[in-house]
Amino acid sequence: MHVVRIAVAGASGYAGGELLRLLLAHPDVEIGALTAGGNAGTRLGEHQPHLAPIADRVLGESTAENLAGHDAVFLALPHGKSAELAAQLGDDTLVIDCGADHRLTDSAAWDRWYGGEYAGHWPYGLPELPGARERLVDSRRVAVPGCYPTGTSLALYPALAAGLIEPEVVITAVTGTSGAGRSLKPHLLGAEVMGSLSAYGVGGVHRHTPEITQNLTAALGSPVSVSFTPVLAPLPRGILASCSAKLTGAAADTATVRQAYEKVYADEPFVRLLPEGQWPTTGQTLGSNLVALQVAVDTDAQRLVVVSAIDNLTKGTAGGAVQCMNLALGLPETTGLPTTGVAP
Amino acid sequence: MHVVRIAVAGASGYAGGELLRLLLAHPDVEIGALTAGGNAGTRLGEHQPHLAPIADRVLGESTAENLAGHDAVFLALPHGKSAELAAQLGDDTLVIDCGADHRLTDSAAWDRWYGGEYAGHWPYGLPELPGARERLVDSRRVAVPGCYPTGTSLALYPALAAGLIEPEVVITAVTGTSGAGRSLKPHLLGAEVMGSLSAYGVGGVHRHTPEITQNLTAALGSPVSVSFTPVLAPLPRGILASCSAKLTGAAADTATVRQAYEKVYADEPFVRLLPEGQWPTTGQTLGSNLVALQVAVDTDAQRLVVVSAIDNLTKGTAGGAVQCMNLALGLPETTGLPTTGVAP
Amino acid sequence: MHVVRIAVAGASGYAGGELLRLLLAHPDVEIGALTAGGNAGTRLGEHQPHLAPIADRVLGESTAENLAGHDAVFLALPHGKSAELAAQLGDDTLVIDCGADHRLTDSAAWDRWYGGEYAGHWPYGLPELPGARERLVDSRRVAVPGCYPTGTSLALYPALAAGLIEPEVVITAVTGTSGAGRSLKPHLLGAEVMGSLSAYGVGGVHRHTPEITQNLTAALGSPVSVSFTPVLAPLPRGILASCSAKLTGAAADTATVRQAYEKVYADEPFVRLLPEGQWPTTGQTLGSNLVALQVAVDTDAQRLVVVSAIDNLTKGTAGGAVQCMNLALGLPETTGLPTTGVAP
Amino acid sequence: MHVVRIAVAGASGYAGGELLRLLLAHPDVEIGALTAGGNAGTRLGEHQPHLAPIADRVLGESTAENLAGHDAVFLALPHGKSAELAAQLGDDTLVIDCGADHRLTDSAAWDRWYGGEYAGHWPYGLPELPGARERLVDSRRVAVPGCYPTGTSLALYPALAAGLIEPEVVITAVTGTSGAGRSLKPHLLGAEVMGSLSAYGVGGVHRHTPEITQNLTAALGSPVSVSFTPVLAPLPRGILASCSAKLTGAAADTATVRQAYEKVYADEPFVRLLPEGQWPTTGQTLGSNLVALQVAVDTDAQRLVVVSAIDNLTKGTAGGAVQCMNLALGLPETTGLPTTGVAP
Repeated sequence: MHVVRIAVAGASGYAGGELLRLLLAHPDVEIGALTAGGNAGTRLGEHQPHLAPIADRVLGESTAENLAGHDAVFLALPHGKSAELAAQLGDDTLVIDCGADHRLTDSAAWDRWYGGEYAGHWPYGLPELPGARERLVDSRRVAVPGCYPTGTSLALYPALAAGLIEPEVVITAVTGTSGAGRSLKPHLLGAEVMGSLSAYGVGGVHRHTPEITQNLTAALGSPVSVSFTPVLAPLPRGILASCSAKLTGAAADTATVRQAYEKVYADEPFVRLLPEGQWPTTGQTLGSNLVALQVAVDTDAQRLVVVSAIDNLTKGTAGGAVQCMNLALGLPETTGLPTTGVAP
Repeated sequence: MHVVRIAVAGASGYAGGELLRLLLAHPDVEIGALTAGGNAGTRLGEHQPHLAPIADRVLGESTAENLAGHDAVFLALPHGKSAELAAQLGDDTLVIDCGADHRLTDSAAWDRWYGGEYAGHWPYGLPELPGARERLVDSRRVAVPGCYPTGTSLALYPALAAGLIEPEVVITAVTGTSGAGRSLKPHLLGAEVMGSLSAYGVGGVHRHTPEITQNLTAALGSPVSVSFTPVLAPLPRGILASCSAKLTGAAADTATVRQAYEKVYADEPFVRLLPEGQWPTTGQTLGSNLVALQVAVDTDAQRLVVVSAIDNLTKGTAGGAVQCMNLALGLPETTGLPTTGVAP
Repeated sequence: MHVVRIAVAGASGYAGGELLRLLLAHPDVEIGALTAGGNAGTRLGEHQPHLAPIADRVLGESTAENLAGHDAVFLALPHGKSAELAAQLGDDTLVIDCGADHRLTDSAAWDRWYGGEYAGHWPYGLPELPGARERLVDSRRVAVPGCYPTGTSLALYPALAAGLIEPEVVITAVTGTSGAGRSLKPHLLGAEVMGSLSAYGVGGVHRHTPEITQNLTAALGSPVSVSFTPVLAPLPRGILASCSAKLTGAAADTATVRQAYEKVYADEPFVRLLPEGQWPTTGQTLGSNLVALQVAVDTDAQRLVVVSAIDNLTKGTAGGAVQCMNLALGLPETTGLPTTGVAP
Repeated sequence: MHVVRIAVAGASGYAGGELLRLLLAHPDVEIGALTAGGNAGTRLGEHQPHLAPIADRVLGESTAENLAGHDAVFLALPHGKSAELAAQLGDDTLVIDCGADHRLTDSAAWDRWYGGEYAGHWPYGLPELPGARERLVDSRRVAVPGCYPTGTSLALYPALAAGLIEPEVVITAVTGTSGAGRSLKPHLLGAEVMGSLSAYGVGGVHRHTPEITQNLTAALGSPVSVSFTPVLAPLPRGILASCSAKLTGAAADTATVRQAYEKVYADEPFVRLLPEGQWPTTGQTLGSNLVALQVAVDTDAQRLVVVSAIDNLTKGTAGGAVQCMNLALGLPETTGLPTTGVAP
């Protein structure tokens, strides 16, 4: 394999930083252009001091000109910024969009949840979903999923697909604050975040709702109703999702459910159904590309509860993106992707 | 009003410490005996250095003899320890049990969830529930609710009682680690807790499940099914509960739901339905006896979502206990109880 | 005593919020005008949801007109903003400046560390320093100390004044992030702060350095050299200061040092020398007006080490300010000020 | 190079877990025996769920028999446990002791600070100290430094060796809680740690004091006095050390000091003097083997201040240990050791 020369647009943000952390450790990658918006012209190390080996690199402008001439270009930009850039990058360049622009297959959903011109949809970068991996191989465009859709779709789709639960799912997902990016908003200040928990985007208004719905509906083949509540918690990284739905009656017990999950995920290198009795923690996934899962059947409430844990920046964004790059370029899917977390 | 002389059994624990913090600021209270189990004989300040005014008090043994002769005795003990002590304290002494021993009205539920001899049930110390306040006035026995049941029952009962939601509720509640008490367990160590989220007691096995079910079933007058998932998050105090259920069709919109909650809680000094658009944070309730609530109607999923925030040690335990003491002894219900939080 | 009607300029910031939390609980105070800069016209509860009893108050502009007609006006403003406002408030109004404008007695120090026009100095609001309390009684102007100077000056001055240490002190003080105010700066974002420690203002360049020097030099009566390093840590509130200096030889042992501190602080209601063997934690001071101190003699290094803990927003800012208000208006000094912390 | 077969004694602790995280990513290493004390017989994944690839391995007893037959054995045990085991492991086995047993060269210091039989001293595993690297090459015994001595010795020795500072140094070092290991002590509980800062081991009584003194004295060639104060802060990992000493007069300015440090560390792969104006954060070193340094000359106080940041579990323990293994076995020193941190 020749070396893959990559560029990152949005290198001063959290997603960009995590992409670079992973790509620096990727044996087949060479880091090319690093670009930014308002931070163009500054040293990368001012924003990402943890990327010591490339801290002295100076950020360029996020223009097509600067991003051209690479094998793969990662876009870690606010939504609405990717389509125009991608159009200028050529069809043979692998463009991996970590933003939302090309995730939704339904333009009406785009209009309702995001607005602005609909940019169409690209192969969806969650290889563990049915049919997704095949569409990613050799693709030159990838839409990286949102962080919440990653952890929750993988938690729920096997049970839906196996007919074990009703198509009305209820999700409460707790997240660290890096999910909001490096946004200068008062509620994201350390003093506000530490020592407090808060709900936001309640009542189905969070933009990841239609994406979760899209994934689960596709997995089942018929409409799935999704109630989604995100909660902000005092930690930098991690999403713990509590996902549940009524049992259909097909699943009498936990063993049946475990078998369904084991079957679906048996060969998945990044999905780990924990041993019975052990529950996922986000700490165990920190900095890794793993999804940790556990299931429980609540016989009183007649509901299945599935809990998933991921690192929102790794499997939830940058790790998922690198996994897709590997698939698209014919590299082994797991190359350069940690399966151990950094704990405690 | 003469001075109320109180004793606290379990004064070296978190619930005991919070009781004393509140009682030190209560204008009608005099602190009497402070007792403990294994920590008897040590200075209170070794365990509760924040209680500076009484830090030099030495803890006695938690015996009936030491606890006798007070107007009110607070028991902050592990479950199974209260009944025997209470029996020796005399019927005219107000005994307020912060533990679980006298909460469940159904001995079969006690057998299933706790085990050991069933101690019967006492007036339930959540005055905001229908009929509860009346039973607390002049009572000499009070069963303080669990922390999760406090925040979740108050979040859901108005909607159930008003017929706005189906009697199948789904709750994910995120908690700080003080809810587990000062237990020396590996998963409660700072290094494990910080930077991680974890689920536990999933699938309906947490001991607060039957208590929530009991409260909601009583409020509705017919059985309510409860799916309850607790999540541990990296903060000392606070519970944020995300509670939802299918709409019955009676509630078309958020305004209808808000009216129902406003009606129920109009005169409650410690329940605050936030203005529309503002969502509860646990930070705003820190150290206060407040419950902060917000509601949303998810028209896509046809579910009502109610979010509540409390301080698990204040309204969720010790503040609720002092509120009950006030009621039982004929003091104004709000005496000595903060309605401002400590933030940020 | 008639009711003291107060106003707070800067009510939407952290210092302003803490002032209001304390003043709401002050038995002799009535809350008057609440004003702000950019947040004028918004509900207080948007910024300070923990101040539930006055959350619906709308903030006015921080003009002299709005602040006039109160017995006491608290200014919680950026430096450089207080002098002009104070000049318009009348000499009989108690003006308590929580900012830096009137702390430094040396205009050259002002020029070097802050710049802009020197506004002169007001009685310094740290009553525990020698001679300070007397100057605060009946004063109508008070300069509230900075948070670092509060904890560190009280840690060191008794040893200096007693001739136990050389006048070259070394201080490293670790702080929570609320000390920086509600500033929208990247390094104060939750994701940056949590899980990280950082030094800043190293090498004597932090603006609190000349204030600490001024306090210690005044206490000794001759110049004291101060090396001061602040460290930012992942917690909302609290300053833990590690302060040391070479022993002069006068102090052979810890007992001698303890006697010196006990003598100085015997009657101070808010300074607590902990029992031997117990070390200060900021947690024990959270939300309280206490300073917790401990001393150790290092016989190998021949240095005295004094550790102090405070809540930077309470004793370090707002609590100190209310203490000064009490003194200036002839109220008991301790009125309305908590001596218990909120822990854990 | 043939594969290096390694064993870890103490695999269920924090140091053991970090060793395994690094060794799993080391291209030349094969994981052999994993042993423990009280946790023998349990699955590794119960204690180290983040080590997913080997989570199902069962821990053996920490006996010489189980540890025999490996190329390298890492001992991550409480002090006092290493000498006897090491004696049974054969002189040709590389034994790397992460504990304190073989660090101190002075038996009197051992007696005073630890007690019990003195086990002698092994080559000291901080290759960046003068002469240390040479002694590690081909060694079959290595004493890994303590975490505090690592960050502080590297911060101060260049200035001492260059004669820039007086041999009386003052250190305050702030640490995350994993430095205390997985000890079930009340003050290490999450609820105690979060939201609080505490000093401990003040006055020169912390056991790392003689080790720092030993390192600096060796670097200078004459006695250095060390005043050391450790502070516990609410984060899992990281040590930020604020180190200072009086200038000798040789260094007029920061540039001179920087030159001295640049000269010493020019070729060190794991020591990074940050660009002027940028201060170390522990966050940037998380999970990496880097030491981040910055210096400042305080011309008022006539002191040099050096701040260092490390990850106490990586460079401070396990990363340093792997670095020594590489040196001892003739591998490139940097093999398998991250130079990027995991941030935010």
